[in-house]
Amino acid sequence: MATTTWPYDPVPMTLSRTLAADLPAQVDAPVRVQGWLHRRRRLSAVAFAVVRDRSGLVQVVVKSPDTRALLDALGEETVVEVRGQCVANPQAPGGVEVVDPEIEPLGEPSATPPVELWRPELSVSLPTLLDQAATTWRHPARQAVWQLAAASLRGFRDTLSARGFTEVQTPKIVAGSTESGATVFTLDYFGRPAYLAQSPQFYKQTLVGVFERVFEVGPVFRAEPHDTVRHLAEYVSLDAEMGFVRDHRDVLETLRDTVAGMVEAVHAYAPREVQLTGAELPEVPAEIPVLHFRDALHLVGADPDEPDLAPEHERLLGEWGRREHGSDFVAIEGYPMVKRPFYTHPDPDEPRWSRSFDLLFRGLELVTGGQRLHRHSDYLAALQGRGEPLAPYATYVDTFRYGVPPHGGFAIGLERWTARLLGADNVRTATLFPRDLHRLAP
Amino acid sequence: MATTTWPYDPVPMTLSRTLAADLPAQVDAPVRVQGWLHRRRRLSAVAFAVVRDRSGLVQVVVKSPDTRALLDALGEETVVEVRGQCVANPQAPGGVEVVDPEIEPLGEPSATPPVELWRPELSVSLPTLLDQAATTWRHPARQAVWQLAAASLRGFRDTLSARGFTEVQTPKIVAGSTESGATVFTLDYFGRPAYLAQSPQFYKQTLVGVFERVFEVGPVFRAEPHDTVRHLAEYVSLDAEMGFVRDHRDVLETLRDTVAGMVEAVHAYAPREVQLTGAELPEVPAEIPVLHFRDALHLVGADPDEPDLAPEHERLLGEWGRREHGSDFVAIEGYPMVKRPFYTHPDPDEPRWSRSFDLLFRGLELVTGGQRLHRHSDYLAALQGRGEPLAPYATYVDTFRYGVPPHGGFAIGLERWTARLLGADNVRTATLFPRDLHRLAP
Repeated sequence: MATTTWPYDPVPMTLSRTLAADLPAQVDAPVRVQGWLHRRRRLSAVAFAVVRDRSGLVQVVVKSPDTRALLDALGEETVVEVRGQCVANPQAPGGVEVVDPEIEPLGEPSATPPVELWRPELSVSLPTLLDQAATTWRHPARQAVWQLAAASLRGFRDTLSARGFTEVQTPKIVAGSTESGATVFTLDYFGRPAYLAQSPQFYKQTLVGVFERVFEVGPVFRAEPHDTVRHLAEYVSLDAEMGFVRDHRDVLETLRDTVAGMVEAVHAYAPREVQLTGAELPEVPAEIPVLHFRDALHLVGADPDEPDLAPEHERLLGEWGRREHGSDFVAIEGYPMVKRPFYTHPDPDEPRWSRSFDLLFRGLELVTGGQRLHRHSDYLAALQGRGEPLAPYATYVDTFRYGVPPHGGFAIGLERWTARLLGADNVRTATLFPRDLHRLAP
Repeated sequence: MATTTWPYDPVPMTLSRTLAADLPAQVDAPVRVQGWLHRRRRLSAVAFAVVRDRSGLVQVVVKSPDTRALLDALGEETVVEVRGQCVANPQAPGGVEVVDPEIEPLGEPSATPPVELWRPELSVSLPTLLDQAATTWRHPARQAVWQLAAASLRGFRDTLSARGFTEVQTPKIVAGSTESGATVFTLDYFGRPAYLAQSPQFYKQTLVGVFERVFEVGPVFRAEPHDTVRHLAEYVSLDAEMGFVRDHRDVLETLRDTVAGMVEAVHAYAPREVQLTGAELPEVPAEIPVLHFRDALHLVGADPDEPDLAPEHERLLGEWGRREHGSDFVAIEGYPMVKRPFYTHPDPDEPRWSRSFDLLFRGLELVTGGQRLHRHSDYLAALQGRGEPLAPYATYVDTFRYGVPPHGGFAIGLERWTARLLGADNVRTATLFPRDLHRLAP
């Protein structure tokens, strides 16, 4: 290390930094801007530099030959400080620009990025988008995509916190697989086998016994051997579970409020990003239209013995919701018990049907939820009825010996949610660094 | 399943539920309470039932022989609904009680719990506390411990969101180990080896290149072969990273605001739990006293060539902070570069010292943070200087070719933070379901 010198970048503190978005309030004042050299345009008498910071873009007008020469030497993406005069210019983006600038790099000149970030549209293939994620997320349109997700997370937590839910953080390394049949990653845990949690399902139900109402935002892991646009090996699950419900309808009501809160948060915290991405935010109706599974099959003209809805059925049901109720959301309740996990609460009147639901958003499944069993004896019967051994679930099932209220919950996949807001086909485009069958980096 | 009946618990909806904490506003009105049968006391003419819900406890006075007989048949922890009259009684906890109750179980009678939750103090051994976590967390004093953690999480996020930080969610399954020397869990990833992330360090630095300021709350994994009171194999890390800093002092200032925000959130969202646990919340001084590592060694009378602070040194420095500055917090800056990771920014004037710090809270290390390298050439030199190959870090290091601003950050361990607020020795007591060398369940 002795051969390296460590030049310190002196930043005079006589003037505090102004973000690009705040410049309109500084017209005719000296300003100090910091960001990335997003774009350079050289004309004969003048050069324009566009600087990007976390709030947006600002145009810098360069006339001095020395500064123009410096600009020529600095590649796009070089981190710079610009000190100059802020002036109004209706032609400039944001209505202001910085003139008479001093430009100072705050590090080394950037190498040429693997993608052209300065173009208004980032036109790259999906593999490039994902392989070069560290760079491609810098594009304003890409940043905006994630800001929709980040705002949604705030909305999810704020809505549930305001309703008396307690945030929990449960282990991702577990001793057994969460749900039979699902694929699971295996781990070497100090010489013993362990697994990555496929969901916090068992823990959140256990914690209803403690806090009544809980939510968790965290990674879940599926060793998903399918290479589809809808599946990831690791994704962010927004989980909620609540006690003292009458049935799944109480859960659906909370889900409705939660989704509405997420949409509100996107409006409140990411209005610029909604514009940038062209995301079409839904209006969440005060009451989400609900169809029983049996009636849904009838409506789409499917065989009444079908155990599940096909994508085409979901699309038709989405159209029905829009046409009949003016709603982007439709809930289908009563899915057949045979297609639901063993902890699902059946309909007491017709035990063939469950007290669970799917929430369809614009004709695509977005959320699964429902009421769960809460009696210990029902758990024993449910496992026996499915010919499943008790042993792998013993700790979980044991919880229900000690008084767990009637309860239910739901889980929203963050990436799927964001992709749907954007009308994007592939959930990978809404994931910072996706993991799938083929992808373990970056 | 055909042999099972599914009795539905009818809950009359003529009256909405009142939480225990809200009963004082319902004096002399009929009320509907739902919760766990926390405690029963039978006297000759009357029986008392204490019902616990998420908000607290309420006393129910039972005189009717039928209801007393029912109460005798229901074990503690049975989930019940109580409908009765709310009356003022200064002797009762909370100043109110419910009289003339109808009591209805909302499920099966509870089995006898493995610990006596009705006792004011939960006096059990650590192994019992952890083995029976699903039950022991139900004790009001235990619930309160986690509520301190949950409120702290809100404070962490709210403080940083208000300062322009973007929440990120980065992968926990990674292709390489984050930091050389640290222990790492190995995973079978579709037939390839992969690892569990030991920290989001590389990702959060990469994302400073995108969003300038980021934070993440999520699990981190250490295959920690030490069985100590301070180490967990999985814990919740509160990470932040910010660009456009002058040096580590800017990072420390943000850390100060963040810790202050966490303390404020605990006051705001968990005042009852602060009382219940007796947690002594610190006052965070407007400016945290800072000592250089060199001066810290001198102050405690240690050898000036010591590369690290011993626990006894930290204790003495904590006393110094309290004595000289009336502060529970002391920051030690300038730790020797040899003891810090390769991405640490050295002090440009004396490259033997780093621009990193530890934050001591009441004489114990709570947070590590500092400025990181931001120039690509510095990364190459740093790895070379340590004789480390570039290849395992290539993707990460490559990021710095494309303009990353001077930046730094910090990480707070949630469980350690909560344990310190409580004055608890063992971080396991502040973890919902801890994972360590020996413990993989519940």
